[in-house]
Amino acid sequence: MEDDAQEVQKANEAFYAAFEHLDIRQMDDIWWHDDDVKCIHPGWAPRLGWHQVRDSWVVIFNHAHRMDFSVCVIEITVKGDFAWIVCREQIATSDDGRRVEGTVMATNLFERREGLWRMIHHHGSPYFAPDTSLPMAPSAFA
Amino acid sequence: MEDDAQEVQKANEAFYAAFEHLDIRQMDDIWWHDDDVKCIHPGWAPRLGWHQVRDSWVVIFNHAHRMDFSVCVIEITVKGDFAWIVCREQIATSDDGRRVEGTVMATNLFERREGLWRMIHHHGSPYFAPDTSLPMAPSAFA
Repeated sequence: MEDDAQEVQKANEAFYAAFEHLDIRQMDDIWWHDDDVKCIHPGWAPRLGWHQVRDSWVVIFNHAHRMDFSVCVIEITVKGDFAWIVCREQIATSDDGRRVEGTVMATNLFERREGLWRMIHHHGSPYFAPDTSLPMAPSAFA
Repeated sequence: MEDDAQEVQKANEAFYAAFEHLDIRQMDDIWWHDDDVKCIHPGWAPRLGWHQVRDSWVVIFNHAHRMDFSVCVIEITVKGDFAWIVCREQIATSDDGRRVEGTVMATNLFERREGLWRMIHHHGSPYFAPDTSLPMAPSAFA
């Protein structure tokens, strides 16, 4: 179980390395290429199936100049051949030479096949509440 | 497989019924009460373990007067005893008598034990991009 979690963490690190390097070949290697993989980027409609998921990474990589990631793994849970990770992404990027920073909360799902863990789902969403003891404001939905 | 998807969809409907009714007892019934269940509400830090997850629902229910949900299931995927749903929540609530509407994209994970599907993870995030063919703006992270 401990080893499983370490393997899943390595798969997660490979995902963020591909993201940071804006490298579609690396991204190809960390996903299962199935019709039922899914991806929800912050603010986007869901991308369904490997074709749409891959296309979304191509679009992002083609429009980003550089992305620096600092990823904090909050929790890894392994259940047999399935695992999910909750992590916080601190992202710095550039917008016409201006540095833009932000924080994203992510849920990443992985499936193991023949000993190999690969991603089957990524959901990233903006994080904007420094005080989590506060109730959810209705404006959070707007 | 078809029956499995229907059962998972029923569990998902029960989750949104509990949410809409602001009923913590109903919410108790749809989750597994484990240390590794997790919940990310829009803009919140993750809640880890049933104690924190339940507490977050109590906070939300205590601060909401009424929530009307219209839920569109986008895709259900079942893999053995593990399933995840991507769905779009149209939510209308009231803020000091003013009607506030918003859209949330959600990833909901379920696990089956002894024939019973219950939730193990909910990740909801604001949806604000009407045109998903556009690249992700850096401001989406901010």
